[in-house]
Amino acid sequence: MAIEPVVGIVMGSDSDWPVMQAAAQALAEFDVPVEVDVVSAHRQPEKMIAYGRTAADRGLRVVIAGAGGAAHLPGMLASVTTLPVIGVPVPLAHLDGLDSLLSIVQMPAGVPVATVSVGGARNAGLLAVRILASGTGTEAERLRTAMAAFQDGLRAQADAKGERLRGRSGDRPATGFTA
Amino acid sequence: MAIEPVVGIVMGSDSDWPVMQAAAQALAEFDVPVEVDVVSAHRQPEKMIAYGRTAADRGLRVVIAGAGGAAHLPGMLASVTTLPVIGVPVPLAHLDGLDSLLSIVQMPAGVPVATVSVGGARNAGLLAVRILASGTGTEAERLRTAMAAFQDGLRAQADAKGERLRGRSGDRPATGFTA
Amino acid sequence: MAIEPVVGIVMGSDSDWPVMQAAAQALAEFDVPVEVDVVSAHRQPEKMIAYGRTAADRGLRVVIAGAGGAAHLPGMLASVTTLPVIGVPVPLAHLDGLDSLLSIVQMPAGVPVATVSVGGARNAGLLAVRILASGTGTEAERLRTAMAAFQDGLRAQADAKGERLRGRSGDRPATGFTA
Amino acid sequence: MAIEPVVGIVMGSDSDWPVMQAAAQALAEFDVPVEVDVVSAHRQPEKMIAYGRTAADRGLRVVIAGAGGAAHLPGMLASVTTLPVIGVPVPLAHLDGLDSLLSIVQMPAGVPVATVSVGGARNAGLLAVRILASGTGTEAERLRTAMAAFQDGLRAQADAKGERLRGRSGDRPATGFTA
Amino acid sequence: MAIEPVVGIVMGSDSDWPVMQAAAQALAEFDVPVEVDVVSAHRQPEKMIAYGRTAADRGLRVVIAGAGGAAHLPGMLASVTTLPVIGVPVPLAHLDGLDSLLSIVQMPAGVPVATVSVGGARNAGLLAVRILASGTGTEAERLRTAMAAFQDGLRAQADAKGERLRGRSGDRPATGFTA
Amino acid sequence: MAIEPVVGIVMGSDSDWPVMQAAAQALAEFDVPVEVDVVSAHRQPEKMIAYGRTAADRGLRVVIAGAGGAAHLPGMLASVTTLPVIGVPVPLAHLDGLDSLLSIVQMPAGVPVATVSVGGARNAGLLAVRILASGTGTEAERLRTAMAAFQDGLRAQADAKGERLRGRSGDRPATGFTA
Amino acid sequence: MAIEPVVGIVMGSDSDWPVMQAAAQALAEFDVPVEVDVVSAHRQPEKMIAYGRTAADRGLRVVIAGAGGAAHLPGMLASVTTLPVIGVPVPLAHLDGLDSLLSIVQMPAGVPVATVSVGGARNAGLLAVRILASGTGTEAERLRTAMAAFQDGLRAQADAKGERLRGRSGDRPATGFTA
Amino acid sequence: MAIEPVVGIVMGSDSDWPVMQAAAQALAEFDVPVEVDVVSAHRQPEKMIAYGRTAADRGLRVVIAGAGGAAHLPGMLASVTTLPVIGVPVPLAHLDGLDSLLSIVQMPAGVPVATVSVGGARNAGLLAVRILASGTGTEAERLRTAMAAFQDGLRAQADAKGERLRGRSGDRPATGFTA
Repeated sequence: MAIEPVVGIVMGSDSDWPVMQAAAQALAEFDVPVEVDVVSAHRQPEKMIAYGRTAADRGLRVVIAGAGGAAHLPGMLASVTTLPVIGVPVPLAHLDGLDSLLSIVQMPAGVPVATVSVGGARNAGLLAVRILASGTGTEAERLRTAMAAFQDGLRAQADAKGERLRGRSGDRPATGFTA
Repeated sequence: MAIEPVVGIVMGSDSDWPVMQAAAQALAEFDVPVEVDVVSAHRQPEKMIAYGRTAADRGLRVVIAGAGGAAHLPGMLASVTTLPVIGVPVPLAHLDGLDSLLSIVQMPAGVPVATVSVGGARNAGLLAVRILASGTGTEAERLRTAMAAFQDGLRAQADAKGERLRGRSGDRPATGFTA
Repeated sequence: MAIEPVVGIVMGSDSDWPVMQAAAQALAEFDVPVEVDVVSAHRQPEKMIAYGRTAADRGLRVVIAGAGGAAHLPGMLASVTTLPVIGVPVPLAHLDGLDSLLSIVQMPAGVPVATVSVGGARNAGLLAVRILASGTGTEAERLRTAMAAFQDGLRAQADAKGERLRGRSGDRPATGFTA
Repeated sequence: MAIEPVVGIVMGSDSDWPVMQAAAQALAEFDVPVEVDVVSAHRQPEKMIAYGRTAADRGLRVVIAGAGGAAHLPGMLASVTTLPVIGVPVPLAHLDGLDSLLSIVQMPAGVPVATVSVGGARNAGLLAVRILASGTGTEAERLRTAMAAFQDGLRAQADAKGERLRGRSGDRPATGFTA
Repeated sequence: MAIEPVVGIVMGSDSDWPVMQAAAQALAEFDVPVEVDVVSAHRQPEKMIAYGRTAADRGLRVVIAGAGGAAHLPGMLASVTTLPVIGVPVPLAHLDGLDSLLSIVQMPAGVPVATVSVGGARNAGLLAVRILASGTGTEAERLRTAMAAFQDGLRAQADAKGERLRGRSGDRPATGFTA
Repeated sequence: MAIEPVVGIVMGSDSDWPVMQAAAQALAEFDVPVEVDVVSAHRQPEKMIAYGRTAADRGLRVVIAGAGGAAHLPGMLASVTTLPVIGVPVPLAHLDGLDSLLSIVQMPAGVPVATVSVGGARNAGLLAVRILASGTGTEAERLRTAMAAFQDGLRAQADAKGERLRGRSGDRPATGFTA
Repeated sequence: MAIEPVVGIVMGSDSDWPVMQAAAQALAEFDVPVEVDVVSAHRQPEKMIAYGRTAADRGLRVVIAGAGGAAHLPGMLASVTTLPVIGVPVPLAHLDGLDSLLSIVQMPAGVPVATVSVGGARNAGLLAVRILASGTGTEAERLRTAMAAFQDGLRAQADAKGERLRGRSGDRPATGFTA
Repeated sequence: MAIEPVVGIVMGSDSDWPVMQAAAQALAEFDVPVEVDVVSAHRQPEKMIAYGRTAADRGLRVVIAGAGGAAHLPGMLASVTTLPVIGVPVPLAHLDGLDSLLSIVQMPAGVPVATVSVGGARNAGLLAVRILASGTGTEAERLRTAMAAFQDGLRAQADAKGERLRGRSGDRPATGFTA
């Protein structure tokens, strides 16, 4: 049985991969098949347009695009597909990703990009899972259940961290106050 | 035949409605039934949690949340639902919405919010349409077709604007240059 | 029976009063007696120091200080009193209050200022109420009860706004979607 | 004799502890008993609400909350308690804590957060001391005296630093100017 | 004798025309024939690519592109032509054009955009004149001479303004100082 | 007896005069003779250099320079004179003067500009007075006395404002709190 | 046969060379002869003016100027030449180059600077090539062909990166999802 | 013969000394006697006021004050002296000194601070020299001459750097272009 990717993860350069692989990792945790590629708005404009124009027909249901600086990839892809496009602002050496963020999120009316935090590729993957989970059918149901379990896991981890922190900080000498 | 809302549009105060109604308008253009409510993270915390916890079971498939300043509503809702949550940074009197934007988009790993531009409620509605259109089934197919037609319409409008602009600017006196 | 002020509201100039009066208003709603004065760090430095040095002995328990631009009043007052000082960044004609905010909030270790939002004088008043309410005794208990009632009121107002909004938006024509 | 905590120090993750422990340290210096816990707005929303709703009844009089990025914990806690809540903006890897600061300080009218500087956990602890010291009773008087002594100590340290600096810089060769 | 345009002025929407017409005006003052069009990166992506790919062959020698917000037009055009592309950041209702500026200027290595100031369409036109004037041939020489004359004119205007200002300010009563 | 100007006030354009005249006004209040001129770094570069190179010899002792946007006038003048140069960041239509401020204040080591606040021309004038007052001789002594009187006046005005504010705010109904 | 430089690359200090040499490198790749020099607006104002005034006559056709902080060199050079001037914002230790960028790009109407990204010296070189390539004659044609080949090379590199990335990411375990 | 200091260099903490010593160094190069001290606005408010109030009588003619974060020292000193006060924004671990800069430069009308760049202590020293040099008398004349020589030295250094750079870059292989 062939497993076709339903999420496309693209980035302007392979130098973005250290940031963007967290999206792939998150989707792998949910058993969502992905494809990964370099699609540069500025170096491969025709490939970019072809990628977007064919994305839905190739079976993709969500596109995740990461880029830095004057980050045009997410917005340009959104203009050539009907799929939801998630944008990941990749921070560059200067300006802390503020340029990346504004270049991605401030899209004009008509062409939305679902933007996550600076460097927030893991959340891009999780947002893709939520989108897939919001639909109908067995697979969406599986993902809703998995996402609920994932959120339970986050809570459990935070509970455990709290427990450890309460233990550790309990040793501090705090004496003498009576309210 | 009852028509149940599939998108919930919520905001921290009815003073956000002038911005947020553009989301409702966009969804109405695509015949997507919505519900609209005030859900304030800071004034109705329990209602907010209940809203998020029950959203999927009540049939919602996407939540759009708008808030300004220290804008906590989108992120808090995302923490209590498995649905995709779209955040709209509503600009306040000062700081041009930069506070709203950062408060919404910079979510920690684990809990994504799909953020649109400052004041970009129309795009929030269109993003919800794309999410609904990315699924399977007749309705998703209808929305994909409608979104493609909408994008054709954007192009046609831009074409027409270009034509008018070319006509208008043609009157300018530019003479004498030979390359 | 004499009613002595327990909160001092000061500002660098009476031009700050249109912003700062919201602090006085909030405290009046909770029946907390206040004193109001112009205390300019840059024009009345000795008065400022005297104000801070005598504040506790004169019966004040909280100081609210508003200032704009290079806003030194809240931090300077905090350096000459043991009382909690609440700082209100007053926005000037340029820079949207960012200068006021950073000048107030970025205090060095040792001398804290409890900073509220740009122009957030009403919240400064409410924060003073919370501080007074956090103590022991009948008056603190009265204020805790009043603050709880106030928060109930906020919730009730938001509920009512939601009801009106649901009614108003119910007229929008949204038809035809079946999930 | 049991010593109950009067200040709660909470943070979104134990990764905030290296920043937040300075608050605990400051309170320990003033012999103020504290409790420390992980309370994540986004991973433990129900725990967060329960924490806030029960804080006053459990004997807490001030809550200190630290969080980074889209930092919702301080504001959300403030919405579910009548206690004063002090917010500490924890800086993340990007944007230098500006997102954390704006997410915490720009609260809407009705729900104040007493915000300190980026990473300013020590000042959060000292602000809590000032709040406790502003009340009535023996303990408050003890803290007022201690805070005054602490401020004297700051002055003495600065005096000593000045003395050393004057000595060190006295060796510089500066010759020949007569006014 | 047909006069073919050598500079193309394009913008994402005709709503940018009030800003962008200053570029056309500047070029008209130098008798440089231009063409003006709406070319939206996000609404007409294929037209945009075709515009860039054919620009040089159609006789254009410089392209001026204006866009606002997540402003992708200048950078995308630069990726599909060998011509110099001048980008004009058009300010939107919020963020004062900072988003437009960063989206245009922060291009990745390989694809430069010659960026001018926020709203600086007149300078975009003048920069195009300088580029045309930097070449060889009679027309370039004409433009060099014209640009030098233009700069002389700027100086003369400033001289005249100074003269008027000296006259006007001469009436102020300033008395009594002897150095 | 001729009265020669000792302070030169220059600006890039007469459109800066509405901001800059406050500098002239302040100096007039102290009976300091000034000259006012348009000196544009970008339109009159040679005049600018000549202005700076001759300033000291012509009897000027301080230069005040105002400019907006990429504001090069103050720094360039500082590079061609030994006099202290005071820079006034004039705010433009966008970016709130942040560009003007950074363009003026961030001078490289070796060539200082004494920068005042955005639009702070009055303070530029007062700073010039302080500089003139810091010297030796009768005139400096006169200015020191006048500046001290001026500061007394600021204090007196603030005192009067405080009195009026105390009176006005005394009418507010604040009842019932006993500490 | 003598080869005269057609592009001048200047910078405020040789400490800018590590950034600026990328401009020289890019031009060398296109066999464009350059001259390189230190020209400091603030330390060599007369040299700067002479450099600009003689640039065209000495055969230069484009000037590239890099500077940091209050970066006046590009704008000042543009005021004393008719040539196109390309500005490179060099980042300093603080503020991430935002001061450099604004000081260069925000030029007043009349005197444009073609600004590239923070630290974007390579793009400055490539922009100079585009400008030279936009003219008439054999050399311009050679450069147009070379630039087109360069862009093909960028695409080919991105294609190769994509291929490698697809191979590398193909090993991730993603199983079980069927749309 | 006693040499009395004419410039006071003060800072909020000795941790500012690594930045501030560049001011002392610059003044030493001009043989201007200085005094150096820790004067903390927030830890030694009374000392700060006494320092300012007595500065002129003790023979100081310029005060240089450095501080970081909510940097109140320069402005507060300016309010208690008639001397010109030069402010040095010391950068802290976060926000790159933007908070320090705005806290110092954005002073209200009436109380100017001559602000230099972030970390620009050397320029603060040089500005003090210019101020001292702007007066009358032999010493001022000596400093004017020294400052002119200093500026000549800056030019000579830049000339030498240019020469070295021209030599170094002359080795680059740039061949084949004929305009």
